[in-house]
Amino acid sequence: MAEQTSRRELVGELSAEFLGTMILILFGCGVVAQVVAAGIGDHDSIAWAWGLGVTMGVYVAARLSGAHINPAVTLALACFKGFEWKKVGPYVVAQTAGAFVAALLVRWNYTEVLAKTDPGHTIKTQGVFSTLPGNGALPVSELGALRDQVIGTAILVLVIFAITDLLNTPPGANLAPLIIGLLVVAIGMAWGTDAGYAINPARDFGPRLASFITGYGTAWRDQYGNIYFWVPIVGPLVGGVVGAAIYKLFISPYLTGEEPQEPGRVPTPDGEHMD
Amino acid sequence: MAEQTSRRELVGELSAEFLGTMILILFGCGVVAQVVAAGIGDHDSIAWAWGLGVTMGVYVAARLSGAHINPAVTLALACFKGFEWKKVGPYVVAQTAGAFVAALLVRWNYTEVLAKTDPGHTIKTQGVFSTLPGNGALPVSELGALRDQVIGTAILVLVIFAITDLLNTPPGANLAPLIIGLLVVAIGMAWGTDAGYAINPARDFGPRLASFITGYGTAWRDQYGNIYFWVPIVGPLVGGVVGAAIYKLFISPYLTGEEPQEPGRVPTPDGEHMD
Amino acid sequence: MAEQTSRRELVGELSAEFLGTMILILFGCGVVAQVVAAGIGDHDSIAWAWGLGVTMGVYVAARLSGAHINPAVTLALACFKGFEWKKVGPYVVAQTAGAFVAALLVRWNYTEVLAKTDPGHTIKTQGVFSTLPGNGALPVSELGALRDQVIGTAILVLVIFAITDLLNTPPGANLAPLIIGLLVVAIGMAWGTDAGYAINPARDFGPRLASFITGYGTAWRDQYGNIYFWVPIVGPLVGGVVGAAIYKLFISPYLTGEEPQEPGRVPTPDGEHMD
Amino acid sequence: MAEQTSRRELVGELSAEFLGTMILILFGCGVVAQVVAAGIGDHDSIAWAWGLGVTMGVYVAARLSGAHINPAVTLALACFKGFEWKKVGPYVVAQTAGAFVAALLVRWNYTEVLAKTDPGHTIKTQGVFSTLPGNGALPVSELGALRDQVIGTAILVLVIFAITDLLNTPPGANLAPLIIGLLVVAIGMAWGTDAGYAINPARDFGPRLASFITGYGTAWRDQYGNIYFWVPIVGPLVGGVVGAAIYKLFISPYLTGEEPQEPGRVPTPDGEHMD
Repeated sequence: MAEQTSRRELVGELSAEFLGTMILILFGCGVVAQVVAAGIGDHDSIAWAWGLGVTMGVYVAARLSGAHINPAVTLALACFKGFEWKKVGPYVVAQTAGAFVAALLVRWNYTEVLAKTDPGHTIKTQGVFSTLPGNGALPVSELGALRDQVIGTAILVLVIFAITDLLNTPPGANLAPLIIGLLVVAIGMAWGTDAGYAINPARDFGPRLASFITGYGTAWRDQYGNIYFWVPIVGPLVGGVVGAAIYKLFISPYLTGEEPQEPGRVPTPDGEHMD
Repeated sequence: MAEQTSRRELVGELSAEFLGTMILILFGCGVVAQVVAAGIGDHDSIAWAWGLGVTMGVYVAARLSGAHINPAVTLALACFKGFEWKKVGPYVVAQTAGAFVAALLVRWNYTEVLAKTDPGHTIKTQGVFSTLPGNGALPVSELGALRDQVIGTAILVLVIFAITDLLNTPPGANLAPLIIGLLVVAIGMAWGTDAGYAINPARDFGPRLASFITGYGTAWRDQYGNIYFWVPIVGPLVGGVVGAAIYKLFISPYLTGEEPQEPGRVPTPDGEHMD
Repeated sequence: MAEQTSRRELVGELSAEFLGTMILILFGCGVVAQVVAAGIGDHDSIAWAWGLGVTMGVYVAARLSGAHINPAVTLALACFKGFEWKKVGPYVVAQTAGAFVAALLVRWNYTEVLAKTDPGHTIKTQGVFSTLPGNGALPVSELGALRDQVIGTAILVLVIFAITDLLNTPPGANLAPLIIGLLVVAIGMAWGTDAGYAINPARDFGPRLASFITGYGTAWRDQYGNIYFWVPIVGPLVGGVVGAAIYKLFISPYLTGEEPQEPGRVPTPDGEHMD
Repeated sequence: MAEQTSRRELVGELSAEFLGTMILILFGCGVVAQVVAAGIGDHDSIAWAWGLGVTMGVYVAARLSGAHINPAVTLALACFKGFEWKKVGPYVVAQTAGAFVAALLVRWNYTEVLAKTDPGHTIKTQGVFSTLPGNGALPVSELGALRDQVIGTAILVLVIFAITDLLNTPPGANLAPLIIGLLVVAIGMAWGTDAGYAINPARDFGPRLASFITGYGTAWRDQYGNIYFWVPIVGPLVGGVVGAAIYKLFISPYLTGEEPQEPGRVPTPDGEHMD
């Protein structure tokens, strides 16, 4: 009986991770399609819509799963916050599936505009779905892109750990999803040059696969012809653990006391898993 | 006696829907006039002012009516949240009337600038008031625009259901109107290409009518000469129900427990109607 | 004794109005100087910095005076919320003085850049300090500008009345200053074409005077040579009262009950004066 | 024993100041690299990412140290809020070290892009790391830049004092870090012309040193060849004290009563040190 409950709970968590990541990518791939394929908006639009997409995805999934919607976050939580290792695989599959379905919807919705701008479905609009070193335009190497993904994701997870730590001073009134979204806005503006700020393996692999099966033959390679898809997977996974470790090393040891119960301070979305 | 009270309550709700939608459209049509007719600002301005206009309209109407200010939201609430069916018609009329009056005010205020930029009141500035496939410029078909409106409004209503669900983790401190506004900002940036993101039948029909009676002869048609005005009505109505159904299918079944009474968590604006 | 206390309280209120309006104008005239005279940023920067300047000015003055920082708000509060009429004059003087001093500081700080861009201190950079019909570039008449200022300020005060009404659903956690700032951001984006959205007589008259005494000889006239300075004084004063009246007519009669005492709902900055 | 505890507490505070300032500069120097060296984004991106970087840095450090992350803030708190003078030196060193390490990371991550845009590592990309009068392009003198830094930092610290004063009306729900970030966004948009808004000696000196030891030979001088690095140190230190004094003079004397204990009002991040 308890096992059945637990099984049902896990289904709910995976459903939330699926839908939350789907919402994120509906905004993320959507805005790049709008800017790159239709020419409406600019890089700031991309940064804002990706970040606000995170906010919306987190609000959708927060109660059920804690709204990781990112394998790099899931892995870091497993390493440092006691998130169950046996759930890591299912979570990552659900996140990637949500990103995949969302990318198919964007691909379908923007069919006419993509066909006009890039009839051959080439690297020109590959960036709508997945990332490239130097955004396909600047002279950044694979190793440069990998380094960038490690650092960028380390920043992401380090600050998420701060924002959701009840022993620190997290935003109250259930507004952590807003602040995390603004964090991704800022990463897009400051850490989006070398590798297009995937900072999330599901965000990159799911849409990459969706583009491949819908006509983008060079989806797995970069502008130099190298196999590239592994960079925005490995970089974020490593970077997330590094960022979490830095927070655990520089901040956590000095935080003391019981979890505060001050009026107005509510558990953050990740609260159950993270503290 | 009770009936009279109830009647007065309904008048208050309709008054709020009228004024809330009017505020929304004063910003929405206003910003497009400023960008398109006067050349001040860009597409990001449009996304921001539409979204913040939603925030302001919701704050005006929230207590009295729950601030639907959108027939697609009203319909979805009637289908899934027990909003009284007999109120749906009056709400939609009040919303459309508010949008109509607001568009007349924008038309009047921007008379001189519109006359200079587009003396014939053609499709060139039609977009100040109502939407067009591909924003009147890109090769998007009527069916493509319809698909876009279904998906875009599904995203809108799905996330609104999450943000106002007290069993999920909604924003507290009466800040749901801000988050809903930011949701519309992001939709404008990521889902504004194929059909100009009406995602609200009242937003489109009211101002379209206002433009028609003030000199825009082609208000009902698109750039191809087809009758178009039904697309941003049908698409959002269908999409809103689809988005609500997805939330009800993927998230609601797994949410458990009584409505939480944690300190700092206040009822959201739609609380009375929606939970 | 009580009289002395009261006198000291009034001095504190005026000090707050002075400093709050000064902070607002340090941002407001500052950003126009940066964009117009130095060419850094664009119209969106202007909208954001003006709006966020309002937020910051309100946080400075909120506790002591309720942070009107705008004679149009003060007048509307006197008409509809019982703000003492005998304080209206002193408040307006303090607000205008704060705006005047701030504009002098901007004038001084940007001396070198203004001298390079506009050595004659002409209408070319007059907009750094005060508003012009059609921003000095579009064919808007004095009457068109007046109409625009009435409507724009009506929107401002109507929404402020909603956001600070404890019987409605105002933002909690002392965040009304943020929402009011975002309101001004949206007005700048949607209602800034015809008259440069002064929507505040002190904001316009104080800096206009500061520019006049520091070398701008045509400060009182518009690009057609007409005496213009009265438009952004009369328009906002009328518009503020109109907006407040609409809120009182369409929303207030239907709001019922005692002021709610729900957890998490705190008095808004204007609370003491406004309810 | 008590001494050991105190020593451990100080280490925690310095660790927080180091990491918080590092996060700030990872965003700050990162966004300028992205805009100036890679051409992605514009001045608005710079203003937003710097401001949001402040928000994130404050959330990281808030509980342990109060998140000064700026020597000008530390000095003002020592002068007016009883912050221990003996801690001022260690705090400033930790802040500068954090900024230095962050700038090295940005320098390393953007190696390829900087090498392409500015192979000689000249004044062309010096602005990625440290500030210049008139941003290296406008005719602003050293004295003009000094004046600008005094005023800009006075605005910063004056508003921070308001936002964190529990006797005023500070933002609740632990959202002061968001509002302080928006304050820096607005300063970047309105006060970034004459001297690039360092408004923080650690922000300028740490990255300047990092650029010097990695190939920027002219790091200490401005475009006229003058020794310039002292301006964004002296200006902010003086300005911060001036701004705090103005708040203490115009607002503090009129604030009365005990610290309020209203529901929903939580201590702000700086609460322990500042009130």
